[in-house]
Order: sequence, then structure tokens, then C-alpha cells
Amino acid sequence: MFSPIKNTKVYEQVMDQIREMIDNGVLKKGDKLPSERDLVEELQVSRASIREALRALEVIGLIECRQGEGNFIKSSFQDNLFEPLSIMYTLEGTNPEDILELRKIMEVEASGLAAKRITDEQLGELKEIMERFEHCTDEKMNAMIDKELHYKIAEYSGNVLIFNILRTVSHLVDDFIKDTRKLIIADQEKKKALLLQHKEIYLAIEMHSSVAARKAMRQHLDYTNKYIKMI
Amino acid sequence: MFSPIKNTKVYEQVMDQIREMIDNGVLKKGDKLPSERDLVEELQVSRASIREALRALEVIGLIECRQGEGNFIKSSFQDNLFEPLSIMYTLEGTNPEDILELRKIMEVEASGLAAKRITDEQLGELKEIMERFEHCTDEKMNAMIDKELHYKIAEYSGNVLIFNILRTVSHLVDDFIKDTRKLIIADQEKKKALLLQHKEIYLAIEMHSSVAARKAMRQHLDYTNKYIKMI
Repeated sequence: MFSPIKNTKVYEQVMDQIREMIDNGVLKKGDKLPSERDLVEELQVSRASIREALRALEVIGLIECRQGEGNFIKSSFQDNLFEPLSIMYTLEGTNPEDILELRKIMEVEASGLAAKRITDEQLGELKEIMERFEHCTDEKMNAMIDKELHYKIAEYSGNVLIFNILRTVSHLVDDFIKDTRKLIIADQEKKKALLLQHKEIYLAIEMHSSVAARKAMRQHLDYTNKYIKMI
Repeated sequence: MFSPIKNTKVYEQVMDQIREMIDNGVLKKGDKLPSERDLVEELQVSRASIREALRALEVIGLIECRQGEGNFIKSSFQDNLFEPLSIMYTLEGTNPEDILELRKIMEVEASGLAAKRITDEQLGELKEIMERFEHCTDEKMNAMIDKELHYKIAEYSGNVLIFNILRTVSHLVDDFIKDTRKLIIADQEKKKALLLQHKEIYLAIEMHSSVAARKAMRQHLDYTNKYIKMI
């Protein structure tokens, strides 16, 4: 009797085996994979198939290849949603307003959660960023602190998925709608408005008021989105 | 003088060239890529590098290989977030409650947006699903209709990104927390409660009331999440 021939490609079977070892906890974050040569021997497939599988795993952000050292399971997955979301954005002809809408939803919820969950130590960090923000006169630096503040609030939501999606979405916004921040900051009055808005968000989180934090973040994004849409 | 040697790997350069053709609109959804042989000739790199790049593009969900026909830019990107989110979930040791929290946020917002944007034709489709839901006695079918209803509401939010992220997150929930739906549906009283909850969501959307739709969806998910957390 013949045995059934599986239609799965060889490189996919190699990937599946590696995925399985991860699911079973045999391979963990930061672990080193066996060498290409060892994989060829153990899995009894061609070196080309092993390389295809490794490249594919590298591209989806599961492993990283360190020159001269070998292949490792990555230890951070913060940015591995960017590539697929970015492709979806380009090829699906996504409306830029869809990104802004999604970002607003996520930022508003992240603020609400941060207000609930933030620790005293984290509040100290946020306060320090706010102080730098207030005293900063350099426009480029100002934009960076602005971003840092938003990232920290997303992080302090305490939900890794929300943090990572929000990072990715903000990255997309930055990539596709570049010069808004500069446009707003160049205007002294708008700059003052932005500072006040961030202060309100900070104070709401400091008071641990989810309702106020969500409201302040919503107002802030309604304000900035208005300028983005004008471009 | 030497010219600088780029450290980018060959397969990455091949991928970049294909990405560029997409960004420039030379390649669109559903388009056929040149054959492997033509790519080897045009890009002057080894067949192995071309294959690595193509496999990688296949794995990130950008192209699909149809046997005997060649490689095509995919025409749907609905599921290309699943793999990276799933990896993040497994390796970051994400808390299952983080997924439930994210799903709730997205579903609540999607309902609110659907109530605002749904067309009469879409409402007709939703009504037809609700009628099937009410008259269905088979438990497996019931679970499928339940899912269909949630997907349709996500779709009618009118935001492709929200729809795709929500699909992915629901998929993750299904994958990691398998038997809740069965557990709830097996109990006749709970089954009745679920039907009523879905009816409330439907009616709120029919009235185009965002506030009511968000509230109904939030209550529904608070109810089901309670059972998921008990497992």
C-alpha cells in the first residue's frame, strides 16, 4: 500500500516543527536554535529547505540571525505586527482615517486602563517626562518627548497586546502622515494647547480617574486628528 | 577606492524590490509575479536567494503560490495578523485576560461604529442572521451563527483595520480558550440569555444608536468573559 503524500511544502514542515518546540516550551525567548547543519541532519531535509524555513521565521519576527553566532528565538516581539499591518494598509487601500480611528480607540482605552493600574513608580516616571516636556524648547526634542509620553501611557495600560498594537498603529501614522506634528508645534499657540492637553491627561492618570483620562485623551486626539485631516 | 559593502542579505534585497513595486503600484492585489527563472535573470541573484525571498513573502501572507500557476500577490489580507499575534501571545507569555480585554474593547467600539454606519442592505443581512440564530436548535450550528453575527458587526464597523484585528483576536480567543461557547450553550437558561443579548445588540444597531449598541455589546461580553475566566 502507498502511504498518503502530504502536500505541505518541506520548509513549512520545518517551520511547524520549530513552532511546535516553542508551543511545548522546549524553545523559549532568547534560546539558540540548532545549527543549520544539525537541523539538516536531524530533520533529514535539504539545506535549502532549512534555509527557506529559517529566512521565513526571521521575516515573521520569530527568530533573529546574529552574524557568526547563529539563530536565536527573539527576545522581543514589540515590532512584529508592523510588517503585516503595513502590508494590509498598502494593499487593501486602507483609508488613512481608519488608522486615525483605530489609534484613537486604542489610546483612549489605554489611558483609561493606565489610570486604573499605574503604580507609584510608573507615575514618577510619567511626571518626570511631563516636566521635561514643559521645559523643552527644542521642537524636535519636543516631538520625541510627546511620543515617549504616549508610549509610556500605552505601556502602563498593563496589557501587552494593547501596547504592541498601539505602538504599531502609531508607527503607521508616523510613516504615512509625516509632518503634522511639526505643523502643530511650529505654531506657538497650538504648542501651548498641546502642552495643556498632555497635562490634563497626566493629571487624570495621577488621580487614577479612568473617566477623566479617557476624556482628556479623546479631546487631545480630536484636536490633533483635525490637523492631520487638513493636510 | 572601495565602495561600501551593504550588509543586507540578498533575500532581503529581493524582498525590498518586490515591496517597492507594491508601494509604487506596479504590483497590485491578485497580480502574478514574474517566474522564479525570470527573477533570477532580472535581479542577477541565485535561485536559492529568490526562493528564500518568495517563501518569506508567502509566510508573511503577501503572496500565495498556486501550484502549476506561479506566485501571486494575495487578494485578501484578512488573516495575516494571526501568525505574528499568535507568536507574541505564546512567547511573551501574554495573560489570557489581556486577549479578552482587547477583544472587548474592539467589539464594543465596532458595535458603536456599525450602529452609526450600517446600510439598509447590511441591516437586512444582520436581520437574516438573527432569524437563523433564533430558530436554530443544533448547538454546533448555533455557535457558528453566533460567530458569524460578531464578524458581520465587525465588518459593518466600516473600518478594515478594526475588522481584521478583531477577526484575529477572536481567532486567538477561539484557539486558546476552546470550550467556553459549548459550556454556555449546553445550559438552556444561559442559551436563552445569550439569544436575548444578541437581540439587544441587533436592535440597538437597527435603531442606529451607538450608545445602546456599545452598552449591549459590553454587557454581552462581560457575561461571556465571566464564564471564560471560570475555566
